[in-house]
Order: sequence, then C-alpha cells, then structure tokens
Amino acid sequence: MINVTVIGTGLIGGSMALALREKKFALKIIGVDQNEQHAKAAVELKLVDEIATLHDAIDKSDLIILAVPVNDAEKMIVDILDRVNKQVVIDVGSIKYPICKAAAESKNRSRFVATHPMWGTEYSGPHSAVHGAFIDKGAVICNKEDSDVDAVSLTEKLYAALGMHLIYMEAEDHDLHAAYVSHISHITSFALANTVLEKEREDDAIFEMASTGFESTVRLAKSNSAMWVPIFMQNKENVLDVLNEHISQLRKFKSCLEKDNYSYLGELIENANKIKRILK
Amino acid sequence: MINVTVIGTGLIGGSMALALREKKFALKIIGVDQNEQHAKAAVELKLVDEIATLHDAIDKSDLIILAVPVNDAEKMIVDILDRVNKQVVIDVGSIKYPICKAAAESKNRSRFVATHPMWGTEYSGPHSAVHGAFIDKGAVICNKEDSDVDAVSLTEKLYAALGMHLIYMEAEDHDLHAAYVSHISHITSFALANTVLEKEREDDAIFEMASTGFESTVRLAKSNSAMWVPIFMQNKENVLDVLNEHISQLRKFKSCLEKDNYSYLGELIENANKIKRILK
Repeated sequence: MINVTVIGTGLIGGSMALALREKKFALKIIGVDQNEQHAKAAVELKLVDEIATLHDAIDKSDLIILAVPVNDAEKMIVDILDRVNKQVVIDVGSIKYPICKAAAESKNRSRFVATHPMWGTEYSGPHSAVHGAFIDKGAVICNKEDSDVDAVSLTEKLYAALGMHLIYMEAEDHDLHAAYVSHISHITSFALANTVLEKEREDDAIFEMASTGFESTVRLAKSNSAMWVPIFMQNKENVLDVLNEHISQLRKFKSCLEKDNYSYLGELIENANKIKRILK
Repeated sequence: MINVTVIGTGLIGGSMALALREKKFALKIIGVDQNEQHAKAAVELKLVDEIATLHDAIDKSDLIILAVPVNDAEKMIVDILDRVNKQVVIDVGSIKYPICKAAAESKNRSRFVATHPMWGTEYSGPHSAVHGAFIDKGAVICNKEDSDVDAVSLTEKLYAALGMHLIYMEAEDHDLHAAYVSHISHITSFALANTVLEKEREDDAIFEMASTGFESTVRLAKSNSAMWVPIFMQNKENVLDVLNEHISQLRKFKSCLEKDNYSYLGELIENANKIKRILK
C-alpha cells in the first residue's frame, strides 16, 4: 500500500479516493484543495485522511492524482512534476493533448502518466463523490512511451484496482474521440435545456410531463460550467468539427419534415438504430 | 374487475397489461395484434389471456386500450368507436390532436378518452414489456369535456392503479409540450447517433470509450422508426418549431467557440443548469 495525494477533492478525485481506500490500494490519502470548504468537506466525508499544502502533500506521497479542471491542471503540472523525485503523477482530465504538451516542459516528464477514466456524473464537489464509481468503464492512458515503465505500471495497477479496462492511444486521438463520445453529448444537452427553458418558461406543464426520455437526454445539462468551459476551450477545434456535423445531421431531420419526406426520415432513424452495436 | 382489450401488444400495451393484472384491475385481458408473432408472444409471455379479432375483443370487453403507432390509431379509432356500446375506449399515443379530430367523426365520440401515459423505453414489441412501468410518471388526459363522465372516471381509476398522477390539458397544448419534452429528445438522439456513426465508422476506439454520459444521451436513438416516423409526421409543425429553436441554441455554442467567447459560453451553461428545477 502506498501514500496517495488527490489534488482536487471533487467528483472524480473524491470518488477515486473512496475506491482506492476500499480496494486497499492506498495506505494514506492526502487531499489538496484550494477551496477551503471542499477541503473541510473532504475530511468530514472521509474521502481523505488529511489536508495538506501542495508541496507538503507531494513530498509525503508515492502517487499524486491531479483531479482539477483541465485549465488548472495544465497550469499546475510543471510545478508538480518539477517537485517530484521518484513519485508518480497522473492526471484524470477530459483533454489530454494540452497537458501532455505542458508536462513536456518539465525535466521530470517521464514521472507523469496522462490518463482519462471514462466515468462521471452531472454533479460536482466532494459531496458528489460516490462509492463504486468507475467499475467496468474504460480508462485511457495516452502517450505511454513518454512515461517511465514503473510509472505506467503503477497507473495500470491503480485502474485495475478501480475495476476499469485500459485503452491506450495518442493524446491527439483521444481528444478527437472524446469530442464524439462525451463533449458533443454535453453541448447537445445544454442546448436542449436552453431550448426548453426558452420556450416553456411560463408553463408548468413541462414539469409534470417531463419523463424518462427527456431526463436521460437533458441530465448532462446540470453539469458544472467551471469544469466544462475549460474542456470546450481546450478541445475547441475537435468540438467545432463534431458540432458542425451534428448540426448538419439535425438539418437532415428538419429537411425531411419540411418536405414530408418520411421514407428518408425512416432511413435516418434506422441508420441511427445502428448505435446499438456501440451501446451495450 | 373488468374485461380489458389491449390493441397492440408491444412495449406500452404489454407493460400496461402486466400492470393491470398485477393491480387486479383487469379480470381478463384480451390481446389484439395484426402481427401474428407478436400475438403469439403476448400469450406466451402471459401479457394477455387470449388473442381475439378486433370486433370479437371489443364485444367481450368493458375497456379497450388502443396502443398502436399513432397513424394506425388514427385510422382505427372510428371503426372501434362505432362498434362500442357502453364500453370505454382509450388510446395511449404520443400525439393527441389528430386522434381527437378523427374520433369526432364517430357517433360514439363520448365513449373515447384521449390519453398519453408519459413513460417509455427505447425498446419495442411484446418482449420489451416490463413490470413496474408507469409508476410515479404523469399521464395526460386531453379534452375530457368531450368524454362521458363515467368514461373519464374509469380512465382515472386505471391510471391511479398504474401509480400515475394525472394532468389535464387540451390536445393541441399537449402536442406542443410533447414536442419539447419528448420528440426533440428523440431527434437529438437520432442525430447524435448519426453524427458519431458518420465520423467514427472505421474506428473501434469509440466502442471502448463510450461512457455513461454518451449512453444516456444516445440511448433514445435505439427507438423504433415504425413508432417514431408517424409521431414526427403527425406533430410536424410543433417539432419543426422546436427543432429550429434547438438548432439556433446549438449555433450559440458554436459561435462562442468560434469567437473564443468563453464568458458567454459559461453563461449558456449556467442558464442550462436551471433545468435542475424541472428535472427531479
């Protein structure tokens, strides 16, 4: 068992801390959080054993998990890496190319492993941390050739302990795929929420009628802007590509309705049904 | 307890049959289905006690539940109503104005109650019927003033037995709201599936990376075109209005990214977060 520092005691960092304790992967878990209320809550909720300053925590740990919004992670990574000696540093952010690029500025780049556990909920903060997160989901490790073998090995053990299967890819490929399987879903959900709120603002009927399908499509619209604005910012080009494609797919549906072309509408739907081969 | 006929033994009709039997609301449940395999499966799965022809089933029942795609329901309603005497006929379709208009052609319009239980899944057919459906969801009753008091009363008892709360509104209002809380979610989901399938057709990474958020947003894209094309057709004007609004909301996100206007992007997301007051 090792000592682990979790920087950012929110949804991902907190849930990971819970899992690492349960799996007896971590002997001690130290939390670092610039938000004092979050730091306090993380101790009270027993996500972490103690709170420390960044440098103290690094010095006392074998593994450092960076679980802050991607723009903060990008800013912090060099400082963290420059401080480490034998420790392993991983990040868990949704975008991988910018942090890999930043990490390359440190003399200790090889102690860093860029990862993305593909799990989340629409909630944030220490109170949103849950037991049993991550299980049976995929975790991506990017550019493993830039990391020391022992660092990759410890990271693989960590994700195995969480019950995740590993996927290896280049950071740039990851960011493109993430735009498709995660970022566009969030934009769609935000835009759908705004569509409904715009048009239905004076009517309570929607409160009553909103059902399972609506909830599942709009659920992600509860997601936190402090987390998502930096993601969209860092993955701007990929997200724009996907968003353009999505808008043109929506226009096909629009055109079918406008032209009463219901056989083509049926084809569009039947094509969409092929998503069954991706979704379990 | 009464005798109930379910016309259409799929997801909705089948799940309703299961619930009505469990709640001891129905003494006998007769199934009518033009698809012979579905009819056979409905008996084997014990959704219904027996299969009968349409007219025989009507003659032997106190309550007839019309649970077929909305275009078929619109075509069948006058024939069914013209056949009834004291029986009550309800439909459970996702669009209410066209069937109310069609029903008005029958001398027995007042035996009909137009309803929409706001529950469903992305699956279809008798095998998709589930126990415990409908509970705690809303059921809409439209234009109740056009129905006999005893017919409305029986319908209210039925939905109470299913554990649903009732919402009363005009058919035209229902169809507008349904476009917002259900139909647009499906179009978004279909289009999102097509976006991903279009761009990622030669890459397995997405299979591995697809996570909870993606699944929840794209789940509805598995929905059946035989059910959904007629819904979009019948609700064309409302769906087009909502779709246009949705596309313009998506364009706002696009414009923020193109112009690097991240403070406005944050505002759009924070506005979308207000959906929390609608979603439980």
